[in-house]
Amino acid sequence: MLLRMSNLFLRTLREDPADAEVPSHKLLVRGGFVRRAAPGVYSWLPLGKIVLENVSAVVREEMNRIGGQEVLLPALLPREYYEATDRWTEYGDTLFRLQDRKGADYLLGPTHEELFTLLVKGEYSSYKDFPVTLYQIQEKFRDEARPRAGILRGREFHMKDSYSFDIDDEGLQRSYDAHRAAYVRVFDRLGLEYVVVKATSGAMGGSASEEFLAVAPSGEDTFVRSTGSDYAANVEAVSTPAPAARPVEGLPEARKHHTPDTPTIESLVRFLNDAGLGRSFTAADTLKNILVKVRRPGGTDWEVIGVGLPGDREVDMKRLEASLDPFEVALLEEADFAAYPFLVKGYIGPGALLSNKLRYLVDPRVVEGTAWVTGADEADHHVVDLVCGRDFTPDGTVEAAEVRDGDPSPDGDGTLYTARGIEIGHVFQLGRKYADAFSLDALGPDGKPRRVTMGSYGIGVSRVVAAIVEQSHDDKGIVWPRQVAPADVHVVGTGKGEQIEVALRVARELADRGVRVLVDDRKGVSPGVKFTDAELLGIPTGVIIGRGLADGVVELRDRATGERSEIALDAVVDTVAAVVAES
Amino acid sequence: MLLRMSNLFLRTLREDPADAEVPSHKLLVRGGFVRRAAPGVYSWLPLGKIVLENVSAVVREEMNRIGGQEVLLPALLPREYYEATDRWTEYGDTLFRLQDRKGADYLLGPTHEELFTLLVKGEYSSYKDFPVTLYQIQEKFRDEARPRAGILRGREFHMKDSYSFDIDDEGLQRSYDAHRAAYVRVFDRLGLEYVVVKATSGAMGGSASEEFLAVAPSGEDTFVRSTGSDYAANVEAVSTPAPAARPVEGLPEARKHHTPDTPTIESLVRFLNDAGLGRSFTAADTLKNILVKVRRPGGTDWEVIGVGLPGDREVDMKRLEASLDPFEVALLEEADFAAYPFLVKGYIGPGALLSNKLRYLVDPRVVEGTAWVTGADEADHHVVDLVCGRDFTPDGTVEAAEVRDGDPSPDGDGTLYTARGIEIGHVFQLGRKYADAFSLDALGPDGKPRRVTMGSYGIGVSRVVAAIVEQSHDDKGIVWPRQVAPADVHVVGTGKGEQIEVALRVARELADRGVRVLVDDRKGVSPGVKFTDAELLGIPTGVIIGRGLADGVVELRDRATGERSEIALDAVVDTVAAVVAES
Repeated sequence: MLLRMSNLFLRTLREDPADAEVPSHKLLVRGGFVRRAAPGVYSWLPLGKIVLENVSAVVREEMNRIGGQEVLLPALLPREYYEATDRWTEYGDTLFRLQDRKGADYLLGPTHEELFTLLVKGEYSSYKDFPVTLYQIQEKFRDEARPRAGILRGREFHMKDSYSFDIDDEGLQRSYDAHRAAYVRVFDRLGLEYVVVKATSGAMGGSASEEFLAVAPSGEDTFVRSTGSDYAANVEAVSTPAPAARPVEGLPEARKHHTPDTPTIESLVRFLNDAGLGRSFTAADTLKNILVKVRRPGGTDWEVIGVGLPGDREVDMKRLEASLDPFEVALLEEADFAAYPFLVKGYIGPGALLSNKLRYLVDPRVVEGTAWVTGADEADHHVVDLVCGRDFTPDGTVEAAEVRDGDPSPDGDGTLYTARGIEIGHVFQLGRKYADAFSLDALGPDGKPRRVTMGSYGIGVSRVVAAIVEQSHDDKGIVWPRQVAPADVHVVGTGKGEQIEVALRVARELADRGVRVLVDDRKGVSPGVKFTDAELLGIPTGVIIGRGLADGVVELRDRATGERSEIALDAVVDTVAAVVAES
Repeated sequence: MLLRMSNLFLRTLREDPADAEVPSHKLLVRGGFVRRAAPGVYSWLPLGKIVLENVSAVVREEMNRIGGQEVLLPALLPREYYEATDRWTEYGDTLFRLQDRKGADYLLGPTHEELFTLLVKGEYSSYKDFPVTLYQIQEKFRDEARPRAGILRGREFHMKDSYSFDIDDEGLQRSYDAHRAAYVRVFDRLGLEYVVVKATSGAMGGSASEEFLAVAPSGEDTFVRSTGSDYAANVEAVSTPAPAARPVEGLPEARKHHTPDTPTIESLVRFLNDAGLGRSFTAADTLKNILVKVRRPGGTDWEVIGVGLPGDREVDMKRLEASLDPFEVALLEEADFAAYPFLVKGYIGPGALLSNKLRYLVDPRVVEGTAWVTGADEADHHVVDLVCGRDFTPDGTVEAAEVRDGDPSPDGDGTLYTARGIEIGHVFQLGRKYADAFSLDALGPDGKPRRVTMGSYGIGVSRVVAAIVEQSHDDKGIVWPRQVAPADVHVVGTGKGEQIEVALRVARELADRGVRVLVDDRKGVSPGVKFTDAELLGIPTGVIIGRGLADGVVELRDRATGERSEIALDAVVDTVAAVVAES
């Protein structure tokens, strides 16, 4: 491959685009890799197209290695398929919807679970047909509310999505593990620094799901890592380590106190500390109880439950919802309170909940032997020294409390801190949701139908390009890993005549050896501009053919390390070919 | 490449799909290459995806060879660009339109002239930057009124579209010629039988445009070919050969006749033959004159013109419009007739038109010295022996008459006959239409801006797959040319045990030699079913490992010729590798 800058459709920019905030957006636009066509919609120019194909090629190889079979499905999909799974409405405004000339409803595929399920249903019918894994690399469409950061979160983007079909849970687990391993190889080969985080804790069920996050300050996803291990998880998936239970013997008796004018935990703590009880309290000594209602997916009846957590922590609704998944969670309305007159707003304690048979779930820190200040189920009154396991026994635990930097790591090593990442991959055990929607069965060896179980797996191919740049750049430009770089070598001829001739000759000889070469053979462009462009474009190896040519010497540059060395012109082709072959 | 039918996502069908009428539709569905997802919307299954990629690879190589640079533009395009060129409305119902969550209008790109023009405008500004040719292979969307024939005319389809940008007409001609030559190479390499037809005659201007039509009875495009040469053209582009002018001396004088009750040409001819004029007439002796109005594109004033053509030919409005291109053509309304009281409906002759300074254009057969029966500009009267060049002198010629089988070929060799074809490619000199819409200029060497001139060129990549099947199949299935076949060799192991083991071994050895292999290693499938599948799938070379194995013999089959031969098992890998390498 030989690209010549004298005719390459490429104009680099010196200025960052006005709408760009993150490095990948700035550099991919400045380097002429992409151009904006509409908000969140980008065109890939020649060098960008090469990078995109290089990433796709790695993904394709690893998908083929685990037996994935490549197909290509349309973007234009009929509404009826997505009605069958409720996604037509569930997707909300994020779905691009349109009508054809006859008024029939269509959508632009955000992912393709429905059509893949139908495809397999159309072809396969026996347990002998399974397992099968199908994948495609194709455009996806999502009408993001705030398309941002260039190709990091676009509205039309490139994705590898694959779907596994198995006849039993063990098969699904194998398919899932194979995908997970393939993703590890893909992201390793692409040179990305990433973490694999559990997407949900699965405390009350829910399927196995992990996200691959490329670590980057510009990432939209927050996750927590440990200072002492490689533990990493989505905030929703962090499980709070429970302290050991303590003996209840010898603990002070629970006592009710009149606590007027203590509408907040802060004011309650201040009141108690001023009350002369002989010890000091902090918000962490209080147990705040909130009420939510839950119902089974698709159910009609709501159940009101109480949730208790240390008063120094905010409720993290996302964590609560993930912890209660697959139950639906909603806040109470006035009518709900009216139905439970024993609940005294602002003063709810475990007592009224438990004695009235409402389910009461608590933070894992609320273990046997812990003593709490909490509501006395009576206006203007709180109880002090209400001891778990003695004065009340919760129905179970739930993750409702926020996670904070400094919290102990769930694996016991180190403490947690917050980091940001870019979701570049997702592996997900769908289970039978889609197979149920379309009655995808396989006849088992016993002649009876078995419901097929599925996994869905995605890699944001275009987003990966941006993630690589987020992780691999400096103040001068991009630093492409060789595997995805638009070329292996950037040969720069400075000067007007001979240097450019020699640069072209060297470039051709390298190309003949199978090296992918970009040669700067532009005339009338200063060496400074050429060097600046070379740094911006970020090709791993540079060969500068400049003034030293008179002495038979050319310069080698390593874009990543900045190392420079002079070598004889005669040796340059062999040397560079060896550098490329070795790396 | 080694594909195993034991786990390939493929189920062949014995029955034609109910909605299929043409061979490619039937066979591509039955062979498991594609599946319908919605009307005119198809999924490509593993073998189909490989064929599609093989076609794309040939297109890509030939585009790169002429210096085309590959890019990738989005499908989702904002309305404003298409407003600027009027295509937002001109495209009518064929355009898929949609709105995003903010209510902004978008469309799904049917072709990308607008965005390419803007892309080049964004990067290039000097004559030194040109010429440039950009291309992409990408999904296109057109809401066809009657999607038909499977992937032959889909609503979402795959297309290579390219655009050339030059600063002068000579450059455009060079870019056009390069594309035309590239297309010839592409379709030759794909083994297609095709004709290159002029899309319009360009009689009154209009830009150069040629279509590549794959000859096939199922084609939607009608064109004419010559019995005596390789002349081929769209019906619209056929220019009628003009006979030589004849001397007017000695011809009978023009005489007006009272011709009551002759509302049709047939009745007029019968009347004249019964009138005792001493000779017989046919419809070909009559000159019928019709009126149309024309106006310049974007103009407001209509001009009424007369069009004269032999009375034995129907008016072909498409030919007339193509002949008058770029003028807009419309039929007259009653109000128009009222404005010209000298026009006597049903009896219009050249006399009234010419004496009242209305433009009068005639069929090329109306040359000097030809005598005609035509209207006398007076109710119930016709003139006989009105001689062109003596009694009237037209303002020019126009192609308004239908083309008939048996008409002389415009190149003088043979006669024309009608054939049908599938449009697989189109090369078109756009000129400055899009550059004008977006003010795409380049500074010339004199420092003055020059308007850029463009060409647009398309290959229907997915349609080409269907066109190949239309031309290359028999009653048993597809006969893929090797260049696009999903594999080079189809190794079939019959029986249960050893044959399948040997088939797999032979397949692996061939794959190790770089041969693309599909192996039928299915157990429990009868030899008959395997042979039927092999013929349906259409891989060029077959290797049957069956009963002969006991004698160390396997069978070679050629799908195209049907030839079969036995060779020794030991020789099969070498022999087949040689067959593949040679072809």
